[in-house]
Amino acid sequence: MAWQAQIAEAAARIAPYVRRTPVLRAQIAGQDVALKLEQMQHTGSFKARGAFNTLLQADVPEAGIVAASGGNHGAAVAYAAARLGHKARIYVPQIAGPAKIALIRAQGADLQVVPGAYAEAAARAVEWREATGAIEVHPYDAEPTVAGQGTVLAEWEDQGCEADTVLIAVGGGGLIAGALGWLAGRRRVVAVEPETSCALNAALHAGTPVDVEVSGVAANALGARRIGRICFDLAQGIESVLVPDAAITQAQAMLWREMRQLVEPAGATALAALLSGAYRPERGERVAVLVCGGNVAPDPLG
Amino acid sequence: MAWQAQIAEAAARIAPYVRRTPVLRAQIAGQDVALKLEQMQHTGSFKARGAFNTLLQADVPEAGIVAASGGNHGAAVAYAAARLGHKARIYVPQIAGPAKIALIRAQGADLQVVPGAYAEAAARAVEWREATGAIEVHPYDAEPTVAGQGTVLAEWEDQGCEADTVLIAVGGGGLIAGALGWLAGRRRVVAVEPETSCALNAALHAGTPVDVEVSGVAANALGARRIGRICFDLAQGIESVLVPDAAITQAQAMLWREMRQLVEPAGATALAALLSGAYRPERGERVAVLVCGGNVAPDPLG
Repeated sequence: MAWQAQIAEAAARIAPYVRRTPVLRAQIAGQDVALKLEQMQHTGSFKARGAFNTLLQADVPEAGIVAASGGNHGAAVAYAAARLGHKARIYVPQIAGPAKIALIRAQGADLQVVPGAYAEAAARAVEWREATGAIEVHPYDAEPTVAGQGTVLAEWEDQGCEADTVLIAVGGGGLIAGALGWLAGRRRVVAVEPETSCALNAALHAGTPVDVEVSGVAANALGARRIGRICFDLAQGIESVLVPDAAITQAQAMLWREMRQLVEPAGATALAALLSGAYRPERGERVAVLVCGGNVAPDPLG
Repeated sequence: MAWQAQIAEAAARIAPYVRRTPVLRAQIAGQDVALKLEQMQHTGSFKARGAFNTLLQADVPEAGIVAASGGNHGAAVAYAAARLGHKARIYVPQIAGPAKIALIRAQGADLQVVPGAYAEAAARAVEWREATGAIEVHPYDAEPTVAGQGTVLAEWEDQGCEADTVLIAVGGGGLIAGALGWLAGRRRVVAVEPETSCALNAALHAGTPVDVEVSGVAANALGARRIGRICFDLAQGIESVLVPDAAITQAQAMLWREMRQLVEPAGATALAALLSGAYRPERGERVAVLVCGGNVAPDPLG
C-alpha cells in the first residue's frame, strides 16, 4: 500500500492511544520557527506512535512482545504493551543509561540490560523472538513502525503546518522515513545527524547502507549502526547535514533557557542544524523543527 | 474602561513581544484536561504579558523602571525593559533563590537582592521610585498589569478553549484577576492556593484583604502577603481551594513524568487541585488548567 494511505490508516488506528502534541512558534536565530513538541508524547518520544500502530495490527501470541532499544523505543513498546494488556520483554544496552532504563522499568516490562551498544541488544531480541515466538516490534525498519511515526507529520499538517522545510533528526531512520512517506515531496525534509552517529549520511555517500561507528551525546537515541533499508530508499536525494555534539548541547540549552522545554540531546539535534548553520534557510523560507524526544539524563526529578 | 476592552487592547499592544503559548490536551485523573502551557512564555512565566503591557503604555523617564519581585515578575520586567531599550532596577528577596536570581541577572538588569521575603523587596522598590522618579511596574495590583495577564485567557479562547472551568494558581492575584476580567462569568474560575500561602482565601473569609504568613514550596512565586485589591474585588463569589505542598510536588512530578513539562511548584499548583481532589469536577465538566511558571530550582542545566 502507498505510504500516505498506510499513514492515514495508522493515524486513525492509534488516535485513541496517542497524544496530539502541541506546536510552538518562536523566534530562533532571527527567524520564525515552528517547533512540533513531540517529546510530550507518551513515554517522552514519538516512538509510541509506531509501537501502537504495530501492536494494534498484530495477532499477539502468549509469548507477548519483544523489542530492542536504545531506550525510547523500549519505553514506548513497554507502555503500549501494558496499555493493550500484553507482556513485553525489552532488551536495552547499558549505554541507554539509568534514566531511560528506569523509564522502561516503570512501564512494567520484563527488562533485560545488555552490555554494549544497540546492536548487541538487537541480537538478543532476535534470539528471544526465535526461541519463543514473541512478536518483535522493530524500532525503525518495519512498515508498521514507519507508518506509525509518519502520523506525526499527518497530525502536524492537520494543525496547520506551513513550513517549506522540516528538520528531522535521524537515528535508524524510522521517523524521517515516515515523514518522507507522508509528505511525498510536498515539503523539503532535511535529515540531521550527529557527526559521530551518521548512518544515513554515510549510506547516502556510499550509495548503500553501511555500518558506522556511533558515539556522542545523542548516541543512545540516534546511534543506529546502519540506516534502515526503508529509510534509505525513501531518503534518496534529500539534504543530509551533520552537527557536532557542541551544537546539540547548545540547542538543548536554548530549548530550556528560552522555551522551558527540557529535552534530551537527540530531541535538540534537529534544532542544532539551524543554530550551527549546518542548515541555512533561504531568505523567507519557512522552517519547522521536529523536537522528538525528552528523556534527558539525569532525570531532573529522579 | 471595562476589563474586556482593556484586555483586548493589551492583547493587540503586546502581540509583537509575547509568545502565543501552546495548549496540550491530556488524560489526567481519568478525565480530559486542557493545559495552557504558559511557562513557555518569555522568561518562563505569564509575567511578561503584564510587563510589556505596562511599559508599552508608559512614558519612561531616564531613571528607567523599577520592580520588586519574588523572581518571575522581576525577570519579566527586566526582559521587557531590555527589549524596549530601558534600564531596569529589580529588587528581589533572597527567598527567590539562586535560579531565579540568575535568571533576572541574565536579562541585564540592575539587580538588588534584599534580605527577607517579598514585602521587604517591595518596600525598597517604593523607596527607589520615590527617590528617582523611576516607573514602577507592580507585580499584580495595577490595571496595566492585570490587563496584560488577562491576555492569556483571551489567547486561550482564540485557540479554541472549550472549558467549563479554569483552574488558576493565585499569589498576589494579577493573573486570576485578568482571567476574571476577561471571562466575566462566561466560564467558572477556580482559585488555587497553597495552604501555606493563601492571601486570597484568607481575604474572602475575612471579607477584606488581610495579611497572611507565607511559606512552602511555591512561596517565592505565590507568596504575596496580602491579596491585591483589584483581584479581591473581581474574585467575589468565586470558588477558592487550598492544596498542601505534597499535592503541588505530586503535580510537578506528573507534569514531568507524563508530559515532559518541567515546571516550578507554582506552575503545578493549579493542577494539584485536580490531583488532590481539592477541586472535584462534576461528571462531564470540561476542565482546563493554566500552567503558569517554569522557573524551577535548581536549574536542571544550570
